[in-house]
Amino acid sequence: MDTTSLSSLFGRVRLARPLVHHITNIVTVNDCANVTLCAGASPVMAEAPEEVAEMAGMADALVLNIGTLSAHQVEAMLIAGRAANDRGRPIMLDPVGAGATRFRTETVVQLLDRLEVAVLKGNAGEIGTLAGVGAEVRGVDSVGVTGDPGEICRDLADRLGCIVAMSGAVDLVSDGRKVASVENGHPMMGRVSGTGCMASSITGAFSAVSDDRFESTVAALALFGIAGEQAALKAKGPASFRFKLLDSLASLQPEDLGREARVRLE
Amino acid sequence: MDTTSLSSLFGRVRLARPLVHHITNIVTVNDCANVTLCAGASPVMAEAPEEVAEMAGMADALVLNIGTLSAHQVEAMLIAGRAANDRGRPIMLDPVGAGATRFRTETVVQLLDRLEVAVLKGNAGEIGTLAGVGAEVRGVDSVGVTGDPGEICRDLADRLGCIVAMSGAVDLVSDGRKVASVENGHPMMGRVSGTGCMASSITGAFSAVSDDRFESTVAALALFGIAGEQAALKAKGPASFRFKLLDSLASLQPEDLGREARVRLE
Amino acid sequence: MDTTSLSSLFGRVRLARPLVHHITNIVTVNDCANVTLCAGASPVMAEAPEEVAEMAGMADALVLNIGTLSAHQVEAMLIAGRAANDRGRPIMLDPVGAGATRFRTETVVQLLDRLEVAVLKGNAGEIGTLAGVGAEVRGVDSVGVTGDPGEICRDLADRLGCIVAMSGAVDLVSDGRKVASVENGHPMMGRVSGTGCMASSITGAFSAVSDDRFESTVAALALFGIAGEQAALKAKGPASFRFKLLDSLASLQPEDLGREARVRLE
Repeated sequence: MDTTSLSSLFGRVRLARPLVHHITNIVTVNDCANVTLCAGASPVMAEAPEEVAEMAGMADALVLNIGTLSAHQVEAMLIAGRAANDRGRPIMLDPVGAGATRFRTETVVQLLDRLEVAVLKGNAGEIGTLAGVGAEVRGVDSVGVTGDPGEICRDLADRLGCIVAMSGAVDLVSDGRKVASVENGHPMMGRVSGTGCMASSITGAFSAVSDDRFESTVAALALFGIAGEQAALKAKGPASFRFKLLDSLASLQPEDLGREARVRLE
Repeated sequence: MDTTSLSSLFGRVRLARPLVHHITNIVTVNDCANVTLCAGASPVMAEAPEEVAEMAGMADALVLNIGTLSAHQVEAMLIAGRAANDRGRPIMLDPVGAGATRFRTETVVQLLDRLEVAVLKGNAGEIGTLAGVGAEVRGVDSVGVTGDPGEICRDLADRLGCIVAMSGAVDLVSDGRKVASVENGHPMMGRVSGTGCMASSITGAFSAVSDDRFESTVAALALFGIAGEQAALKAKGPASFRFKLLDSLASLQPEDLGREARVRLE
Repeated sequence: MDTTSLSSLFGRVRLARPLVHHITNIVTVNDCANVTLCAGASPVMAEAPEEVAEMAGMADALVLNIGTLSAHQVEAMLIAGRAANDRGRPIMLDPVGAGATRFRTETVVQLLDRLEVAVLKGNAGEIGTLAGVGAEVRGVDSVGVTGDPGEICRDLADRLGCIVAMSGAVDLVSDGRKVASVENGHPMMGRVSGTGCMASSITGAFSAVSDDRFESTVAALALFGIAGEQAALKAKGPASFRFKLLDSLASLQPEDLGREARVRLE
């Protein structure tokens, strides 16, 4: 896969500084804000039904993350999502914990049904649950999935008509036909709360600068993985890893992404 | 007190990786998630009435923390608490700010009345308030308590039929008969927001791996105190202390707990 | 401007340890708590209508921040604000995102109308919006304002009868007659989420120890700017800057503020 165009996408994020509207969870919301800034974009968080249509309409992308879902948020997500769709802005959906409770699974199904989602990104258990294959989610952790991960992504992407990304030791991304693998990353990323949410925020930011959401998702996940690799070289534990992850991301330059990305079409 | 068994408990947490369901506050929720991971357990935060019974039923322990309490949370805590009780899973209750407002005090009384709580852990003002002795709480800080702290813990534990822990320069833990003191810790822990909440998350995680909640609470508080001692050696201020506290906790091994714990029966 | 009295104010914060009640946003609430502690004050966050009057009545200052505003919060802000006004405690209002959505702008207008606010502090776009001059806000970022910033602050302060502070590369503070500029600070502060909110928390803490809210606001903003300057000397990126900002603040002494403050009357 040509990684020069990934660099170019990153350069566009840094230049355009897209506004990324988040409706997200209370656990990692600060990480989402800071990771968005470090990637080069601008975050805004708003979830009051009174204002989400205006905010989503002003933003360049919308990130929906159900990590601490409430009924109020579902309402806000639908309003914001329609506003984003009306203006042709991409929606990135992170189905945190889908498969763990009916409320989460059913909400994701509803969001996918009523909104045009550009990118759906989750762990193996979450994506497997939504694909209807054997999958298990414990809390917000994937326990496992039955079947070939690449095929699951491709089939689900094909059925939903959107990009599907499955995070893991190797991230997989599919548009329903192609499947790309992203090998960047580090096991330390699994030892910190919020790295999945952060990856979604970056993916949302990248989706704002290209209509090719397959490539923008690959670029975002490779970039975040590279930041993780660099942070792991210097971290003394999960908490120092976490701030070094953000510092590394902030210091990465567009050309670094092209050079360091380890992505390929399956 | 034999500290070998504390090591063994810690080893069990690392091995079993218990899922700890939190209904907690918006201030320190991220710290609670990360400290749970660093201890070796797995956190999940969920507070929608629609899903808390399912999530608590799936989890190995439930941590209730009223740091930014709302009426919605009280409802969710009661539902989740009943689900945990029905399945015999321990509930850890942190009565943050009880004594400061009637809403907090009355909610804690209600939770203790309707749920079977395994461990109640608060500061001197909060525990004193619930014990009905002279106590003062200002915001979420203890101003002081009248009487002998060990006796207050023992009497309250005896009356409630649960473990009562009072945090402070020396932490006290009682099961209604015995009183243990835990001398591990560092004054720097009082200069960072959230250390009390973090101690409760770890206590919740430890309560999942033993039916002896007196010992599991002592083990959790000693472990967190040791992490604080190690972090203080290297920190240049409260904020670097905070990430070093998490890094230290993550790097501690079961045998370290047995060797470093300074606990004794009063 | 005589900076000796700024030192004296800081000394009073450290000595009196004022309790600062916050109703704030979910993104930066933890930063607000920790920055309040590092300044030397004590934070408490509470937003349930059931308890905010009691909490605000117990506190020495009230900070209202609309960063992730909800209708429930508006209700809580009005109740808490009345309790603070009744007891003569200062209210610090941060109109995050005013100008971006009608809900935010109208809520700020309503709060300013119904409550006696001591200090209103926002970025150029937010303050310009409230002043009714040409101003633009994108998400929570100021895009710009038309007119002379000092005059805008002075006119708005005069009309509202409170202190108005406009944050930026140089912060401006006015009481409706005088205008002070605070040149302390560092561009890195704009690369981290929450520095504006943190400045508001410190401003709230300082407003608790003096009836001269013009001077207390200048002192708070200079102090935070100095902490930023010191942190920038050692930071390797935005995330390490952020923890060093808190460490620097905690280590600053009253005399440092007097010596390092770069403030002058325009």
